[in-house]
Amino acid sequence: MISIPLEDRIGLQDLMTAYCYAVDKLDDVDGLVSLFTPDAVLDFSAIGLPVMNGHGEIRTFFDRVFTDMSHHSHYITNFRPIRYDGTSGAMTAYVIGIGRANDGNTVEVNVQYTFDAVKTEAGWVCKHYSMFSMMPLPGSLAEIHGDH
Amino acid sequence: MISIPLEDRIGLQDLMTAYCYAVDKLDDVDGLVSLFTPDAVLDFSAIGLPVMNGHGEIRTFFDRVFTDMSHHSHYITNFRPIRYDGTSGAMTAYVIGIGRANDGNTVEVNVQYTFDAVKTEAGWVCKHYSMFSMMPLPGSLAEIHGDH
Amino acid sequence: MISIPLEDRIGLQDLMTAYCYAVDKLDDVDGLVSLFTPDAVLDFSAIGLPVMNGHGEIRTFFDRVFTDMSHHSHYITNFRPIRYDGTSGAMTAYVIGIGRANDGNTVEVNVQYTFDAVKTEAGWVCKHYSMFSMMPLPGSLAEIHGDH
Repeated sequence: MISIPLEDRIGLQDLMTAYCYAVDKLDDVDGLVSLFTPDAVLDFSAIGLPVMNGHGEIRTFFDRVFTDMSHHSHYITNFRPIRYDGTSGAMTAYVIGIGRANDGNTVEVNVQYTFDAVKTEAGWVCKHYSMFSMMPLPGSLAEIHGDH
Repeated sequence: MISIPLEDRIGLQDLMTAYCYAVDKLDDVDGLVSLFTPDAVLDFSAIGLPVMNGHGEIRTFFDRVFTDMSHHSHYITNFRPIRYDGTSGAMTAYVIGIGRANDGNTVEVNVQYTFDAVKTEAGWVCKHYSMFSMMPLPGSLAEIHGDH
Repeated sequence: MISIPLEDRIGLQDLMTAYCYAVDKLDDVDGLVSLFTPDAVLDFSAIGLPVMNGHGEIRTFFDRVFTDMSHHSHYITNFRPIRYDGTSGAMTAYVIGIGRANDGNTVEVNVQYTFDAVKTEAGWVCKHYSMFSMMPLPGSLAEIHGDH
């Protein structure tokens, strides 16, 4: 286990938790985007979804997700700090992500998130976020979030 | 994120976690009731279940739940402090609640809890507890816990 | 709630979380075994699986699990300290364990873990780990992990 002050560990946990609340709220893209640095990279390629570069692409992706989905529920557990240097750090966590699209299609994923983040005066902000699936991916993931 | 001393944050988390253990134990209503102030309000109306006022009504509701259910499992995640004033505070969390009734019927809910609690010499105690569903509610919820 | 310094509470949480990561990695038995004292006892009898005594038997059991399984996902929540004496302590937690075997069989369990652990210079290490199921056990558990 790496050494990290408790305050920063909790800051990273709160950032990842805030992301889950923001994704599940489904109506505040600004709030979600504000959790990331302007040049943040979101790499969802390991689950067959886009790589997004910067606030503009993040906003475009989640604008469509929020339009398409009627319900979201992202349970985050297994927080584990993996890097810390005083001004930046990274943490992994497990997520059960459950979604229901407006067309009634449903999806459940079992994924692991990695957030690499920087400490600012306003708190921790994510600069690189990636995920991979811990179980075989359901076919409905591409149906719901893939290109269409 | 609101400002809250770590000790109180953990106190709120422990209160919500203790509630899950108490609900899942299925055989100690006194232990469950002791987590609430005598005049506590439990408002389950957003999921089609009762509003309970005070220890008596809380006890009546859970006496029946504990009689009806053979298994319970309430996984609590996504703790988030939302209010704190030094002597009281509130926290939200996500819960996956899984139940099996004695008649074999099963239910799974994806809900968000809010606990508003007060700090006492014996620790944090809940004075208002509400929940809402993050996903469409299963029909078996009303079958198992509704009026009958 | 028992009294336990925050540092040790987090040490116990990290140990249980590290175990979940190790079980889910499926390719590093040494890393998993190192989380336990040489004479540690793993008692899985309450879910119809073996009691293991010491590193040798633990290794044998997980060697086979890692050979048999293609995917694992163990979500750990509801951490609760239940004993602490300064040099040793115990904690319970809830786990949703999801697995997929190489033959395509799948299993999901809803269990409660208890870790009894000792504090060493290298951190907390488990000396007794037991679990029980909070829901009826699925038949596929014995098919996947039972004697064969």
